[in-house]
Amino acid sequence: VPYHPTAKDGAALQHPRCCILILTRALTNALDCPLSFASFSENFNCHSAHQSIIETGMATGVRMFSTPITPRVSETDGSGHINNTVAPIWFEAGRKEIFRICNPDLYFGDWHLILAAMTVDYVAQVFWKHPAEVRTWVQRIGTKSFTVYEEIWQDERLCTKGTSTY
Amino acid sequence: VPYHPTAKDGAALQHPRCCILILTRALTNALDCPLSFASFSENFNCHSAHQSIIETGMATGVRMFSTPITPRVSETDGSGHINNTVAPIWFEAGRKEIFRICNPDLYFGDWHLILAAMTVDYVAQVFWKHPAEVRTWVQRIGTKSFTVYEEIWQDERLCTKGTSTY
Amino acid sequence: VPYHPTAKDGAALQHPRCCILILTRALTNALDCPLSFASFSENFNCHSAHQSIIETGMATGVRMFSTPITPRVSETDGSGHINNTVAPIWFEAGRKEIFRICNPDLYFGDWHLILAAMTVDYVAQVFWKHPAEVRTWVQRIGTKSFTVYEEIWQDERLCTKGTSTY
Amino acid sequence: VPYHPTAKDGAALQHPRCCILILTRALTNALDCPLSFASFSENFNCHSAHQSIIETGMATGVRMFSTPITPRVSETDGSGHINNTVAPIWFEAGRKEIFRICNPDLYFGDWHLILAAMTVDYVAQVFWKHPAEVRTWVQRIGTKSFTVYEEIWQDERLCTKGTSTY
Repeated sequence: VPYHPTAKDGAALQHPRCCILILTRALTNALDCPLSFASFSENFNCHSAHQSIIETGMATGVRMFSTPITPRVSETDGSGHINNTVAPIWFEAGRKEIFRICNPDLYFGDWHLILAAMTVDYVAQVFWKHPAEVRTWVQRIGTKSFTVYEEIWQDERLCTKGTSTY
Repeated sequence: VPYHPTAKDGAALQHPRCCILILTRALTNALDCPLSFASFSENFNCHSAHQSIIETGMATGVRMFSTPITPRVSETDGSGHINNTVAPIWFEAGRKEIFRICNPDLYFGDWHLILAAMTVDYVAQVFWKHPAEVRTWVQRIGTKSFTVYEEIWQDERLCTKGTSTY
Repeated sequence: VPYHPTAKDGAALQHPRCCILILTRALTNALDCPLSFASFSENFNCHSAHQSIIETGMATGVRMFSTPITPRVSETDGSGHINNTVAPIWFEAGRKEIFRICNPDLYFGDWHLILAAMTVDYVAQVFWKHPAEVRTWVQRIGTKSFTVYEEIWQDERLCTKGTSTY
Repeated sequence: VPYHPTAKDGAALQHPRCCILILTRALTNALDCPLSFASFSENFNCHSAHQSIIETGMATGVRMFSTPITPRVSETDGSGHINNTVAPIWFEAGRKEIFRICNPDLYFGDWHLILAAMTVDYVAQVFWKHPAEVRTWVQRIGTKSFTVYEEIWQDERLCTKGTSTY
């Protein structure tokens, strides 16, 4: 069930430092995280909120989002492979369900997610010919930010991996 | 069954004016077109080839290719809708099976399709939130060119339509 | 001098059919068009507005906008040339000064331009290596729409031409 | 003067491990680096090549490449700002002169640069309205890889910074 901010959250959303807390609470709920956010949810005191880190991975049973990708001619470049600037685009596409958790109506006017940093490691070429897949996990949920870890797979081969920190 | 050029075709492919004929023959075979290309296929005489036009549409039972599209944040613009420059990108994505018919290996080194013209009519806004679909038909197969007609649908509504002439 | 809508225009902008008239009046002013829009500008009567067509071209001295373009690797495709879906992107880039005329603050919240149709003719390949240029003219200003005609040049060669109708 | 590989380099280019050495030698020459590559340039012995690190920055007088960018509507997203996936595209555009150093003919068939990793830090929003600039430095030249550091500036404000490692 997506987390819908309440009136109480609405007030907190006015407070710049609390905004990410609401989002991470929504994330925590949606992902069935075993974290205690009780003290935080009662008084929205940003400074007392418990900082937690969730290490995820395929083996841990943590929820993964899978996004099928059909590579496009326009995404190749003169080398004949998928251009390296396409990986961040596919990764962002893979985060659509994360966006939906934090913003159930997917309404830009109510968008509070600001990307702070991105890393991409290029492990192997991605080809236009075959279908690809983006795999997306929430790697870390802190009190002021969270990190998404993603991978691009093609033909049972890990091609690209990266993180996005909001 | 995709049409694989034969040695005979290979020779013809060296002849600039014949190249598109090989491609349209492949298209005709793949699409089960009721056209007679006999005189053409026997002597590769470009000038004597019979020019034919296939009028297509959903009601005619002509083969349609359907490509599901999940709109991406990076494809929106400041208006909050999908940017108009994205329609040609989705349309090209919709032609992937057409490319495969003309070039079964999808190998760029053996790419003989040159886009000559494109038209797009914007009927209604396309939104980021909901899934979309590209529908693709071969509208016309001539002796020197062929035309693909495509539509973008979202929420059971025709949003964009366009043609690509090779 | 960019045309700034007045309070009177503001009222007209509420009327859907008048919106494009305000924009075309701004365009006409900015482009020093020799058209008489007097009757139109006095009463905003959409139906009585005089429909005019401005034929433009390099030889006519009509104002042209020139936008230098440095082709990017990410804009090439596996063929080694600039991908055909890039032409509409460059053309839209070429219309930035048109957008500024119609919306001096370039503010998306006050965006009244809706693209209705686009055509592109691909005359010659565009290469990554060399600089390119987009040339932009307002081809036609009607009472309900206007058309922009654009060309992509590279190495003193016309490569692509197209129209955008708002 | 761009560095043109010689016949000797041509032989080395066949050796996978030497390819990046040729490129870094070209880079070193072009950038007037005070490094001694003598032992390397005489025998192309990959293992004996001296690993060097060049720390760069605006204050050091190291050569910077500046690329003017005119933001495009198609590069904005529903938030009204430039979408975060555009930064890698602009950064790659900023590396065009780096590409030219390593591949003077800018010919894709002779392309030996493989991107291994990318990082981007988003410091401030980039807006569509105003011109932007990409500033590009070679930060590090090693024996097997080199790193490019880049910044996006707009209105005298640092908006984005990132690295690309080849």
